[in-house]
Amino acid sequence: MTSFIPPLHEKSPHLPFGDQQDSAFYGRDIISVNQFDRGQLNYIFDVAHEMYEMVARVGSFDLLKGKILASLFYEPSTRTSSSFTSAMERLGGSVIPINNVSYSSVTKGESLPDTIRTLEAYADVIVLRHPEVGSSALAARYAQKPIINAGDGIGEHPTQALLDLFTIQEELGQVDGLTITMMGDLKYGRTVHSLARLLTLYDIRLNYVAPEILQMPAGIKEEVEAKGIKQASYEDLIPVLPETDVLYVTRVQKERFEDPSKHEELKGSYVISTETMKAAKDRMIVMHPLPRVWEIDMGVDEDPRAAYFRQMEYGLYIRMALLAMVLGKA
Amino acid sequence: MTSFIPPLHEKSPHLPFGDQQDSAFYGRDIISVNQFDRGQLNYIFDVAHEMYEMVARVGSFDLLKGKILASLFYEPSTRTSSSFTSAMERLGGSVIPINNVSYSSVTKGESLPDTIRTLEAYADVIVLRHPEVGSSALAARYAQKPIINAGDGIGEHPTQALLDLFTIQEELGQVDGLTITMMGDLKYGRTVHSLARLLTLYDIRLNYVAPEILQMPAGIKEEVEAKGIKQASYEDLIPVLPETDVLYVTRVQKERFEDPSKHEELKGSYVISTETMKAAKDRMIVMHPLPRVWEIDMGVDEDPRAAYFRQMEYGLYIRMALLAMVLGKA
Amino acid sequence: MTSFIPPLHEKSPHLPFGDQQDSAFYGRDIISVNQFDRGQLNYIFDVAHEMYEMVARVGSFDLLKGKILASLFYEPSTRTSSSFTSAMERLGGSVIPINNVSYSSVTKGESLPDTIRTLEAYADVIVLRHPEVGSSALAARYAQKPIINAGDGIGEHPTQALLDLFTIQEELGQVDGLTITMMGDLKYGRTVHSLARLLTLYDIRLNYVAPEILQMPAGIKEEVEAKGIKQASYEDLIPVLPETDVLYVTRVQKERFEDPSKHEELKGSYVISTETMKAAKDRMIVMHPLPRVWEIDMGVDEDPRAAYFRQMEYGLYIRMALLAMVLGKA
Repeated sequence: MTSFIPPLHEKSPHLPFGDQQDSAFYGRDIISVNQFDRGQLNYIFDVAHEMYEMVARVGSFDLLKGKILASLFYEPSTRTSSSFTSAMERLGGSVIPINNVSYSSVTKGESLPDTIRTLEAYADVIVLRHPEVGSSALAARYAQKPIINAGDGIGEHPTQALLDLFTIQEELGQVDGLTITMMGDLKYGRTVHSLARLLTLYDIRLNYVAPEILQMPAGIKEEVEAKGIKQASYEDLIPVLPETDVLYVTRVQKERFEDPSKHEELKGSYVISTETMKAAKDRMIVMHPLPRVWEIDMGVDEDPRAAYFRQMEYGLYIRMALLAMVLGKA
Repeated sequence: MTSFIPPLHEKSPHLPFGDQQDSAFYGRDIISVNQFDRGQLNYIFDVAHEMYEMVARVGSFDLLKGKILASLFYEPSTRTSSSFTSAMERLGGSVIPINNVSYSSVTKGESLPDTIRTLEAYADVIVLRHPEVGSSALAARYAQKPIINAGDGIGEHPTQALLDLFTIQEELGQVDGLTITMMGDLKYGRTVHSLARLLTLYDIRLNYVAPEILQMPAGIKEEVEAKGIKQASYEDLIPVLPETDVLYVTRVQKERFEDPSKHEELKGSYVISTETMKAAKDRMIVMHPLPRVWEIDMGVDEDPRAAYFRQMEYGLYIRMALLAMVLGKA
Repeated sequence: MTSFIPPLHEKSPHLPFGDQQDSAFYGRDIISVNQFDRGQLNYIFDVAHEMYEMVARVGSFDLLKGKILASLFYEPSTRTSSSFTSAMERLGGSVIPINNVSYSSVTKGESLPDTIRTLEAYADVIVLRHPEVGSSALAARYAQKPIINAGDGIGEHPTQALLDLFTIQEELGQVDGLTITMMGDLKYGRTVHSLARLLTLYDIRLNYVAPEILQMPAGIKEEVEAKGIKQASYEDLIPVLPETDVLYVTRVQKERFEDPSKHEELKGSYVISTETMKAAKDRMIVMHPLPRVWEIDMGVDEDPRAAYFRQMEYGLYIRMALLAMVLGKA
């Protein structure tokens, strides 16, 4: 395969969006959190909130009847693929599920651009999960139909960041003025990196709580710093919990530790229990991208401040909004 | 993960059903054959018969339009998952297919309760197949949406038992007064255990035909005995075939025998052929949960008494009925 | 399992079709390219062209609303299964996706006839991909519902041949009078064998361009010869390219060569580049069944004569036409 790259389509996410919000997303790709400004985020959240109200009222409706989503997953992700499938079905559309595609290198099998150009003969929009950074941007360069990035390796997972932000706004009424504390594996967690970037568009404070070897990377901190956001790092939750409005917990994987006993040790200091919650504000939320392992005790699930299962539901509305918008039906 | 277990929801199958049949199943789980009484079975079969008539007349209809089924299979079962998918689609609903989920232990991956609580943000009803006994009951304890057990290991597979019973009623007009002969692997066959339990609600006779090492377990026989049902065990079909109204054949797997020649030997005595059928009543049926291997000769397929493929179709109507009922649309 | 074979159903594709084209395909199977005459091909292409116009105008429509397709793939084929799924969904129908079915021999698992007879209790039409030659014909012999062959090993893949022919007709306005040059692996390529057979119904010329070890098999050439079609073999594209109306390129797999350096050597002589295209007619098309590896340079993709991605789209319309026809809705 040569390295021939066609010119960017006019729908490219690298071009600035137009001013007219109502048509700004029609035919566009959703590749990176960096493509959004606050006006666009507000617009997405307004549409997502309408989706929430429609689902509460009628369950499903025929906004995207006759439209087809190709759900192309090169690596399994039950949660994300189920969420997009449900989003399309609640809007009356159909899905072509393509799971467990064996990832074959460019030299052995078909290139991603060819697969994308084949699928766009069958579908109106393509959701892509692929283990390689930049794969969604590559796909978008070739596709005439909108591409939605559902995770490109350690790159981005923009719909996750959008649903995280939407959860905060819906649960607490606004984002400005809040103190957001991120805890757990902040070094390798794609989720917290994207969310931190997106939060720099707001007037907030960021706390990072993690063991030293899992702290937020310097690169992200510099980006946050450059936007004038106040941030601080801690190894313990106790000093910052009382002032925290959003506690965003992530999974700490055993594999990150050379010494397994180190991982065991952490379970003491970094687990959220009903006891922990006593020191938290009455009006705050606990979030987690799931799956969790031991980071949040199941006893916390009954606490009304535990927002992580509602967070899954907000993800449905964000994905409904994005599908409707890129298909010109919002 | 701690062992915290939340209180049962009011929809729990462990609570007795109400008297009003039309709303008795709305929001309920379908976990075990033990949850049904005869009145409820009659109601399910009435609805299933209506489904049969509607499918014969119009193929599909929009009773569950806009509703979403999450079909969650932790182990493959093409027959059962296809049947539920078809049932949902014939009712105008949609499906989120989740197959080949790698089963990961509670310590390594996500717990079943968390998976269920995530999926119920996307779906209106969840069908669960899982290799562990009690998994569906566990799921039901956490879920707000109805759970339908599609097989929990060597536990139960209630929709199979319901479709077996419905087949008998539809094919022979009634269940009371019949002689049902079960043949094959009665020791390990989950299907015959559930069916035997369900049949104790009727006035029937049970014959068990199996080699001694594969006979019906003492526990099941005691349950049947306690309900006052006449039962008898045989090693050969010949003496009971002439009086049999329903011959329920099951698969005998080679793996059950330490001595493989023993398995070969059985093929002589436990296979149903056109020759065998000569000694059977004119009005009787042969059933099999499928897949069959050698237990029923393909020549028998053309015999009108061979009901096993029709049995698959009755399964569709039972699953349509259950989906409509738990979603409050029957 | 005995070798009992029931009599053919009246819907068998081995019987000649009736004269009335509008009902000729209702309830029929699509098994082999040999079952079609020119009148039937014209009819299929007329319906496919209508599908193209309808999709261009409205995207999807409810011609097959309420109908269910069982998509049964014993080996993966993302392109073919996605195309059939899209075809069914654009017609308003539903799909039961059955992928990654582990192929088990007749002695160990369920026989194909039993699987088919089970699925037809749930679906209105079955698309079958299976690694064994003759599997679709076998399935059709047992099924009451229409079977569409989506590839039976090195046997046939009739919908591919139909879409290839439809692409030629749509792109160039007619098939008669054209010179079609097939290039690449002509020995093992199921696609070019079926297409060559189908082309013998037209007044065309065939050129075969391949290294000697990958030339068109003598058997196919004899069939073509018997129909009075002019054909000629070459090892190089240069002499025939200027007169070529359709250049049909296929993939040359490394595994076909005992000496890997031989494969490398070919890349020089059998690759289509922008340079190659300079010697081709202005009005001609390049086709490829995809996936391609190195046979067509990506630079050629922008050439309007590159028809291989449009070919994928024509496949959608052919499959929509066939589904509508066998379900009696064309």
